[in-house]
Amino acid sequence: MSQVRNILFIMCDQLRWDYLSCYGHPRLQTPNIDALAARGVRFTRAYVQSPVCGASRMSFYTGRYVHSHGATWNGVPLKVGEMTLGDYLRPLGVQAALVGKTHMRADTEGMERLGIDPDSIIGVRVSECGFDPYERDDGLHAEGPSGRYDPRIPRYNQYLNDKGYAGDNPWHDWANAAEGEGNALSSGWAMRHARKPARVAEEDSETPYMTRRAMDFMAEAGDRPWCLHLSYIKPHWPYIAPAPYNTMYAATDALPLVRSEEERRDPHPVYRAFMNLRVASAFSRDEVRAEVIPVYMGLIKQIDDQLGQLFQFMGQRGLLENTLIAFTSDHGDYLGDHWMGEKDLFHEPSVRVPLIIADPSSCADKARGSTCDELVEAIDLVPTFLETIGGAPQQQSHRLEGRSLVPLLHGEQPADWRQFTFSEYDYSILPVSAALSIEPSRAHLFMVADKRWKYVHAVGFRPMLYDLQSDPHEFRDLGADPAFEAERERLADALAQWALRVSQRTALSDAQMIARRGKSQARGILIGVWDESEVPTELWSRYLGSTE
Amino acid sequence: MSQVRNILFIMCDQLRWDYLSCYGHPRLQTPNIDALAARGVRFTRAYVQSPVCGASRMSFYTGRYVHSHGATWNGVPLKVGEMTLGDYLRPLGVQAALVGKTHMRADTEGMERLGIDPDSIIGVRVSECGFDPYERDDGLHAEGPSGRYDPRIPRYNQYLNDKGYAGDNPWHDWANAAEGEGNALSSGWAMRHARKPARVAEEDSETPYMTRRAMDFMAEAGDRPWCLHLSYIKPHWPYIAPAPYNTMYAATDALPLVRSEEERRDPHPVYRAFMNLRVASAFSRDEVRAEVIPVYMGLIKQIDDQLGQLFQFMGQRGLLENTLIAFTSDHGDYLGDHWMGEKDLFHEPSVRVPLIIADPSSCADKARGSTCDELVEAIDLVPTFLETIGGAPQQQSHRLEGRSLVPLLHGEQPADWRQFTFSEYDYSILPVSAALSIEPSRAHLFMVADKRWKYVHAVGFRPMLYDLQSDPHEFRDLGADPAFEAERERLADALAQWALRVSQRTALSDAQMIARRGKSQARGILIGVWDESEVPTELWSRYLGSTE
Repeated sequence: MSQVRNILFIMCDQLRWDYLSCYGHPRLQTPNIDALAARGVRFTRAYVQSPVCGASRMSFYTGRYVHSHGATWNGVPLKVGEMTLGDYLRPLGVQAALVGKTHMRADTEGMERLGIDPDSIIGVRVSECGFDPYERDDGLHAEGPSGRYDPRIPRYNQYLNDKGYAGDNPWHDWANAAEGEGNALSSGWAMRHARKPARVAEEDSETPYMTRRAMDFMAEAGDRPWCLHLSYIKPHWPYIAPAPYNTMYAATDALPLVRSEEERRDPHPVYRAFMNLRVASAFSRDEVRAEVIPVYMGLIKQIDDQLGQLFQFMGQRGLLENTLIAFTSDHGDYLGDHWMGEKDLFHEPSVRVPLIIADPSSCADKARGSTCDELVEAIDLVPTFLETIGGAPQQQSHRLEGRSLVPLLHGEQPADWRQFTFSEYDYSILPVSAALSIEPSRAHLFMVADKRWKYVHAVGFRPMLYDLQSDPHEFRDLGADPAFEAERERLADALAQWALRVSQRTALSDAQMIARRGKSQARGILIGVWDESEVPTELWSRYLGSTE
Repeated sequence: MSQVRNILFIMCDQLRWDYLSCYGHPRLQTPNIDALAARGVRFTRAYVQSPVCGASRMSFYTGRYVHSHGATWNGVPLKVGEMTLGDYLRPLGVQAALVGKTHMRADTEGMERLGIDPDSIIGVRVSECGFDPYERDDGLHAEGPSGRYDPRIPRYNQYLNDKGYAGDNPWHDWANAAEGEGNALSSGWAMRHARKPARVAEEDSETPYMTRRAMDFMAEAGDRPWCLHLSYIKPHWPYIAPAPYNTMYAATDALPLVRSEEERRDPHPVYRAFMNLRVASAFSRDEVRAEVIPVYMGLIKQIDDQLGQLFQFMGQRGLLENTLIAFTSDHGDYLGDHWMGEKDLFHEPSVRVPLIIADPSSCADKARGSTCDELVEAIDLVPTFLETIGGAPQQQSHRLEGRSLVPLLHGEQPADWRQFTFSEYDYSILPVSAALSIEPSRAHLFMVADKRWKYVHAVGFRPMLYDLQSDPHEFRDLGADPAFEAERERLADALAQWALRVSQRTALSDAQMIARRGKSQARGILIGVWDESEVPTELWSRYLGSTE
């Protein structure tokens, strides 16, 4: 019996799996996240369903593959009707609340077609991935000649104004810019300024602000069970940090660069196109990495410090005993590895994420502080949370495509755990697809990986293949090597089986399908009956055979 | 420029493609349907997306594969949010109205979750495949110990009562039963009564009633453009017809039986399980076919006669000049072929349907009376109707998976017409799946066929394969024959490509994806920028670089 009442679902944005000390980073000490790992299970092979914010998050929040929910990239609306974490938890009396980012784009056209008022409670939830927005802030408040990137003005801007940080957009001018010369700013958007201190005081920067908002929520929630999604924008770009985090690390503290000239020799056309992007070129330069990675590390360190404060706050209120805490990220960051910047493709620095879950219940005692090497996926979190608070995710298998991690959290080893993990990427919204002359519906990549092999199906091109055992750094693309035809066939077959899965029969569960078997006869539907003697007499006498 | 203003979308239920004289039936003369074919194009290779009413119809009405819309069998709700024919036509000023059957089950749970009142206009349309129900009648009003099969009492019952046909359920007791002995009925549910005359007068039977309701609708509609779905339940079971249609044909008028002992020698396990069903055993008996098929033919003849009256009515009102008429069926009927009854599997008598479309516009003149042998699908109708009334289905390609038939109707021959057709079948709701020990999510069959080969992927079993060229009757399953490995691989690959298609990104069109390419920079999102000089000066001076 679980004594867990609440769930704290912490997400960072663009946090690589290996930039935490508990995951082996030698220079970046993250003692508070490490302590969480010591209280729970640390997953070493956790994968996101798409290495881009919006698509990945919609999988985290729906428990469904991108191929199923269809929000394939940032800004693609999650279509109305898709069920989200909040929809699963609410009937069990648990409120799902949001502090921070979701990258959700509402399906306003679908809502209008269905007559859903966006300002109604249902409308707000449909627009916010099923969360009640305690503090919604997608974390990117840029502006340019075409207008604001995110039309919603964040409450954080008002906070900064109230604290004396002037201007229309203090998010940019203070939290994401450093002092320049004269009346000029050194904007965080230009990476050469990365190591300059942001203009805000540390406590007024985004990570501490959101952490305090999480505390506010917990203090207000009282005894009502909750699931709080605390979703930091950091260490996502703009890469800029307040003092002292901006200078806490040096270029030499970064993990060794993982790239090889072999990768640039006749690369796969899609990989080549991504290597040609501005951000890839930038991160291929030593001076860029030297300026950015130390700040990336500082931003992570700040998150760890803030989580220390949050966990202390929760401990003082007894919340650590009844709250399951999950810590993860929506995707990684190449940081120059593989001649790439950002995310987008399926190398481990991009598609693999940290995942730590601490279950305070006694059932989890024997697994505390352990690691789990099974393949786990972002879509596993919704069923995990649901089971944790007493729901039955297996009854939702017609909707939820992930699998509850609860057995793994309790130190059990299910014999039938998944053999493959899947991720995808829709690049139709990127100019890359035009450069490759690929029409939008075909600008799609699919990854299928087992513990050793990683296969990428690139619609319209040859596949890619990596052997993580003989080539752990993923330098050698075996996608065209005749010697590996059998491996490619095996993985292509696994991908095909996955693609053929029944994912859209979401309105009736497996149990409901089974319960309906053979039931129509009792409602008078007689198929293939020749003579009355073939069915129960009662049917004829009472329903079908009499003129009485 | 099309002069078409209205669409008449006629559907029969369970009408085999080859039981019409225009499709070559030697004994069943259907002059009115033949005349329609003479005014339009007759498609010789039209396939449904699933050989079962509900799933097939949801594909007809959404323009999407079953794998995409998820209403995989009768009674599986079409999930709220799926767009239907009416949603596409309404913005163009065309009302979509229903007379007859849809087999739609509303997603009441989804509607409740989204706060959609089922009695509101939107709620009614969401519950009725997007149609305004002028006369909704799913055509099966059986009752048994567990209650009514369809909880909605049809208006038709009231009509019959008003005409003096007494009882709670005159649909059964009069329209679908013959006189028995004493106060007993000879119910149409027992096939041995098939050739007895139904107790209603011919003009009060279902087909003429629905035809008159279609006329009522047209008369009331006036000058407002409409799309009327006239959807007959017949020649679907209960196989019983009013005089004189019950005795119009003899057993010798049936098409020759198509079956072979070869089919029963070591059949595919799924095929074997279906051959073991009561309905298959029944139709394997001569006496059953001899009793049923003549009535099946009579019911078709009655439809043809009624369509004659309808077309005359339309002609008198000038409606034949401005109405595109489509005639088809939701699936076929084995009628004992292949040792099967009913539908369910993918032999031609089950999955292939008649499809005739008459476009009155002058652009279609050169194709009038022709046949088209291209592979066409049920999902092609929504885009065809949309284009016909001036819409742009290609702009809906992120939702509509079919392809407009308008070029074919106009006698054009697109060079890139589809090479494959796809159909599927979810048997998880059938006891067959328990007999085969297949869990619900895997109880699924997929057909992929080109003009020569038909391949069936049966999850959990070996595939089936038929060569329609050397074996037009589909007697030899080559699914396990080593000589055809290459064909199987080719078709399995086509199926895999199909399964991997992006079908759920329905909230943004391809054009919208393209329009967004490279647009974030103009909203201030600068990715991979090192130095201000890399982007337009204006961005810095006006938005990012100044404290002014």
